[in-house]
Amino acid sequence: MTPEQPVPDVSTLPVRVKAGLLVGKDFWSTMDAPDHGVGSVQMSDGPHGVRHATGDELGLNDASPATCFPPAVAVGCSWDPEVARRIGESVAREARSLGIDIVLGPGINIKRTPLCGRNFEYYSEDPHLAGELGVAHVDGQQGAGVGASVKHFAANNQETERMRVDVIVDDRTLREIYLPAFEAVVKRSAPATVMASYNLLGGLHATEHPWLLTTLLREEWGFEGVTVSDWGATGDPVASVAAGLDLQMPGRSEEAVDAIAAAVEDGHLSEADLDRAAASVLGLRAWVAERAEPFDVDAHHRLAREAAASCAVLLKNDESVLPLSTDARIAVIGQFARTPRYQGAGSSHINATRIDAALDSIRSLAGNVEFAAGFALDGTGDAVQLRDEAVGVAGASDVAVVFAGLPDAAESEGFDRAELSLPDDQIAVINAVAEVAPRTVVVLSHGGVVTMEEWHEQVDAVLDCFLLGQAGGSATADLLFGVANPSGHLAESVPLELRHTTSFLNFPGDHLEVRYGEGVFVGYRGYETTGAPVRYPFGHGLSYTTFETSRLRVDATGAATAAVRVTVANTGPCAGRHVVQLYVGSDAGPVHRPVRELRAFRSVWLEPEETREVEFDLDDRAFSYWDVTDHAWVVPAGDYRIEIGASAHDVVAAQTVSLTGNAPVRALSRTSSIDEWLNHPLIGGPVLVEALGRYLPEDQGALIRSDPAVLRIMGSMEAEKAMRMFGLADALPALDELVARSAGSAG
Amino acid sequence: MTPEQPVPDVSTLPVRVKAGLLVGKDFWSTMDAPDHGVGSVQMSDGPHGVRHATGDELGLNDASPATCFPPAVAVGCSWDPEVARRIGESVAREARSLGIDIVLGPGINIKRTPLCGRNFEYYSEDPHLAGELGVAHVDGQQGAGVGASVKHFAANNQETERMRVDVIVDDRTLREIYLPAFEAVVKRSAPATVMASYNLLGGLHATEHPWLLTTLLREEWGFEGVTVSDWGATGDPVASVAAGLDLQMPGRSEEAVDAIAAAVEDGHLSEADLDRAAASVLGLRAWVAERAEPFDVDAHHRLAREAAASCAVLLKNDESVLPLSTDARIAVIGQFARTPRYQGAGSSHINATRIDAALDSIRSLAGNVEFAAGFALDGTGDAVQLRDEAVGVAGASDVAVVFAGLPDAAESEGFDRAELSLPDDQIAVINAVAEVAPRTVVVLSHGGVVTMEEWHEQVDAVLDCFLLGQAGGSATADLLFGVANPSGHLAESVPLELRHTTSFLNFPGDHLEVRYGEGVFVGYRGYETTGAPVRYPFGHGLSYTTFETSRLRVDATGAATAAVRVTVANTGPCAGRHVVQLYVGSDAGPVHRPVRELRAFRSVWLEPEETREVEFDLDDRAFSYWDVTDHAWVVPAGDYRIEIGASAHDVVAAQTVSLTGNAPVRALSRTSSIDEWLNHPLIGGPVLVEALGRYLPEDQGALIRSDPAVLRIMGSMEAEKAMRMFGLADALPALDELVARSAGSAG
Repeated sequence: MTPEQPVPDVSTLPVRVKAGLLVGKDFWSTMDAPDHGVGSVQMSDGPHGVRHATGDELGLNDASPATCFPPAVAVGCSWDPEVARRIGESVAREARSLGIDIVLGPGINIKRTPLCGRNFEYYSEDPHLAGELGVAHVDGQQGAGVGASVKHFAANNQETERMRVDVIVDDRTLREIYLPAFEAVVKRSAPATVMASYNLLGGLHATEHPWLLTTLLREEWGFEGVTVSDWGATGDPVASVAAGLDLQMPGRSEEAVDAIAAAVEDGHLSEADLDRAAASVLGLRAWVAERAEPFDVDAHHRLAREAAASCAVLLKNDESVLPLSTDARIAVIGQFARTPRYQGAGSSHINATRIDAALDSIRSLAGNVEFAAGFALDGTGDAVQLRDEAVGVAGASDVAVVFAGLPDAAESEGFDRAELSLPDDQIAVINAVAEVAPRTVVVLSHGGVVTMEEWHEQVDAVLDCFLLGQAGGSATADLLFGVANPSGHLAESVPLELRHTTSFLNFPGDHLEVRYGEGVFVGYRGYETTGAPVRYPFGHGLSYTTFETSRLRVDATGAATAAVRVTVANTGPCAGRHVVQLYVGSDAGPVHRPVRELRAFRSVWLEPEETREVEFDLDDRAFSYWDVTDHAWVVPAGDYRIEIGASAHDVVAAQTVSLTGNAPVRALSRTSSIDEWLNHPLIGGPVLVEALGRYLPEDQGALIRSDPAVLRIMGSMEAEKAMRMFGLADALPALDELVARSAGSAG
Repeated sequence: MTPEQPVPDVSTLPVRVKAGLLVGKDFWSTMDAPDHGVGSVQMSDGPHGVRHATGDELGLNDASPATCFPPAVAVGCSWDPEVARRIGESVAREARSLGIDIVLGPGINIKRTPLCGRNFEYYSEDPHLAGELGVAHVDGQQGAGVGASVKHFAANNQETERMRVDVIVDDRTLREIYLPAFEAVVKRSAPATVMASYNLLGGLHATEHPWLLTTLLREEWGFEGVTVSDWGATGDPVASVAAGLDLQMPGRSEEAVDAIAAAVEDGHLSEADLDRAAASVLGLRAWVAERAEPFDVDAHHRLAREAAASCAVLLKNDESVLPLSTDARIAVIGQFARTPRYQGAGSSHINATRIDAALDSIRSLAGNVEFAAGFALDGTGDAVQLRDEAVGVAGASDVAVVFAGLPDAAESEGFDRAELSLPDDQIAVINAVAEVAPRTVVVLSHGGVVTMEEWHEQVDAVLDCFLLGQAGGSATADLLFGVANPSGHLAESVPLELRHTTSFLNFPGDHLEVRYGEGVFVGYRGYETTGAPVRYPFGHGLSYTTFETSRLRVDATGAATAAVRVTVANTGPCAGRHVVQLYVGSDAGPVHRPVRELRAFRSVWLEPEETREVEFDLDDRAFSYWDVTDHAWVVPAGDYRIEIGASAHDVVAAQTVSLTGNAPVRALSRTSSIDEWLNHPLIGGPVLVEALGRYLPEDQGALIRSDPAVLRIMGSMEAEKAMRMFGLADALPALDELVARSAGSAG
């Protein structure tokens, strides 16, 4: 990118000008200072399309036309970084044509609860999957010259009280679940900006959080871009600058500029902090470029259709009712077939260039299609009459395809859902149709997960489309008729019941505080560990062909690394995309770990009868947990299960590898507990008892040797304290003798 | 009680003497100071019997003979405060005969996890049940002249790292689950001492915790007794005194006395604090009395038998296989029938005056009894041979009674269990016997809960005896033959699997920290809320007769109180004790509450065909939650379900009562969120929109009126901030106008 004009040296700018740079010009652009040669930078909402608001302010429903690609909820299900990359690239092209330099996105927060109203903007409940897709989107978008804004940093996992809620989460959980996707994008893709979220984390607003914005992001991860607030997330303008927030959006009042300038003048804020932030914002000018030619609306729509076909998940397909024959008598039921639900509400809402309705696309492929609305999305109409019409049409068909889902009003940025089921009238229609139709297929549109218990057993197939973007309707038709082969996999678990989710007990919190009491056991990490059954597990997804996994081989390549090879084959009738899911599980180490965790995946296209060997090099992160004492990723010595899963629940191949790991041997001291002495790898019970015995009269030494239960009962007591309490102080020199020996190979 | 000699005025004592009073004389007695007229006070372990250690130190297995009454795990299942009271009274009599002034107990900690190795010393997973039984025990013991020591204060719910683990628990959970039993005993029974536990709570050792020992215990609850450390729980002697710990046990070294005296001299510790603690310890002398006559060993054994019969829980009794006929050919299987497991290991271990073996008692009641050991408790012997012998005996019987359970080594103070199932060899014997015996009854002995999935469906009856004390064997025989009618009910849930327990994800913690991530959802509060199935729910227990519940009537008696009447009848063939369990549940208020919580219970003896009306006056605590902002018990306005349960899962009668509650109406301000404005009971959306409209140009007013979705998306933003961000600052005076009106009836 070539800046329109050179960026001035920050040291030449007056304090008030520098302060002005930090607080934005208006709703969507950074401050300019023409007298000092500083131009503005243009931003817009995203990320699955450009929301170039035409009004001054939030204007959620007015925007320039742009392609609405599949939102993150669907892209997550592609398990295909190439899909994310191409969407990012195309969004960038559209942004360039609208004169936009930065598009806000992608959203890579973890889906902690299926109730989160904004889950449709996020990829997954798994940090590895979210991170890989986030990296790809940013690489695609920034590679095409438009800056990204990775959001919402950090632990912004609910909409309820999102601007005031304090997230209480332990360090290990933060490191293992809520931060890794950000870490991956920051370290690998150097995003132009990182967006600080609305919520508080451990008592501090994310926009005023020195550890988040400076210690972790810049010093530990090496971030060199701009930190920007979510719109309206800031409070005290000076505290934000001091914490490491560069840009406060939307444009704030003169009062904020005054406050920052005054703080520098009276010494409450160092000019170095001001300069660093101002220089950072000036650096954003590197993303400014000439406005590009209008984008190719048709080509982008085709891409949106192709991407959508990679995202939808075939959950159920009893007796291969899908793909449909184009000769069948098809009853299309459900208002969503005519009025697609293809994106969510809020800041990401795109003014689509066009919208494919599934009904039209089905009619273009099949000759014998009847339609009934089945239900009304706005609650109008006679529900009984609508249902009866649907039953009439379904009864005269070979197969009924019911387009059901959540209406717009059910979910949005800004508030969370209250329940997981489909609306009652839709459930009634599905069941009534399934009663009369020879075969029933349900096509689902929704941003957050829905439960299916009221109707799942009555239907033959379920194609879960989540929100597929503006070409979702045609992509759905492609999938229904086998023009495309379903290849999506769930990026989040579908529970049987809301109360089975581990976050249920601690959501959405109360009194402006939410405790992540489930710790690292989020999503499938929870279900697999507690044993709660799910309707469909994370990673599940069917195809019109079949795949087989064989010849898994795992070799340790170092103390904490391994190489994995596995062979996959297409054993079915048609070409298709297979996703190899690699999970790791272990009981090693001092922390309670999930049964298994996704550590790698690979998307592989296979022609019928084609066989491929897939290799993974697993680095130490694949085996590690975050150690809160060492403040480090630690791989304890032990056995690690390497599992290839058809999902997080269905392991199709497994092998165990023993690793020596990288955990240091701890040195003992007088204040180490009795258990630590007894269990130390270089000391242990016999050595200790022998040493103590040498300092004790015969009878006392005998007591220790004869009654280890007493030691065990006091196992958590510091050794010196225990010995004094039980009259064994004479033997303390024995401890000192052993302390040096215990250090052994300690690091 | 009459002190042997008057207690001197503390102000007359030298600093070093006062300091000496705080740190104990030896393992079991407080410091005396003969020159100053101060005598010692004698303590012993308890609480289900007197463990008068005959050695100087812990000496876990040497003690004077005393009656081993049913431990707390069993007393909990009696749901009968009279049982607890009589045990406390009898323990006191035995203590007096041994010259003991204070018996350490009862233990009233909550069973957070079934794995806790010390669960056998605690009553229940429910704070109301634990509190009622704790009150009764203390009243019984202290009424007979021996001081109690309620322990372990507080949140000491595991043995793993018990001396070093920091318990991280939120205030609401602490108040609602872990503190109420202590609160009840302190407020209602004025225990002589409260014992500070080994663990840390929120970063501070319980023995150095000013909030626990002073703010809460003395200032809020009005405690006037002595705070004593658990044995060896103290660290810095000065910090403990400053925090409000009076007595540090066991007797500490001269160095501790020196440290306290020096701290007073150099001003680090106020002499007022020293005097308060010393006066408190001197006050313990009020419990000193003459040594009583030897207790009536036979009478106490009879009481132990009677109490035990009230504690055992009949879990299953298919086709009324129990009670047994004395004429039946009975195969008694299992080493526990001959070598009873009747108490747990550790500081509570009693040197019993005698021990009834069930086999002997069964033989005294029935004529045709054969025995086979079935398994060895110490792992010796040929398992196959032992099992074959058992099968042989069982095959020749009318009914087999298998005495199974956990061996001594499986559970103890000092460490936690690793799993919940019975030993494999016992499971094999149960199943082998059930295969050949016409009927199979399992009698269980164990301190912590055991799972039953491997054998439960194969047997006809299960009598769960937990640990019944020294007369457990004869009491069990009484129950098996119907000499006594089972009337115990589970005081803790029996899970299907360990991983279903809500604490599973956060137990036992790591890196010396355990987070109570499940919050208030402990025990049945968890299972009933998450929907995890259990083998047997809290409160379950069968009888040889049947009871019916009818005519439930609930009347509000105030804004936050209600009166409940319910009729219970014995509709079966024999007299028996029925426990009326009253639960309350509500969705009212801002916090996530358990589905139901035990708020009252009553033990009722009913002859056949007898009918009784039972009344409960529910005070405001029965409907309240702990509000962390108000630091108060709050009853929100709303509907409350009053449920009479045969258990926490089986509701047999229910009625809903509406309460206006006692929650104050909050006044609004400019910093109240948009949602708070929109949802305020006295303001609400229409009033707000109308007021704003008066200050805005027509078009902006219309926007607000027409697009409430924008307001909802920004619902958690402070009102003034939102209005400024969206250019509506001109209407801020409207907020000010409404602020006063919002106060309404605010308190």
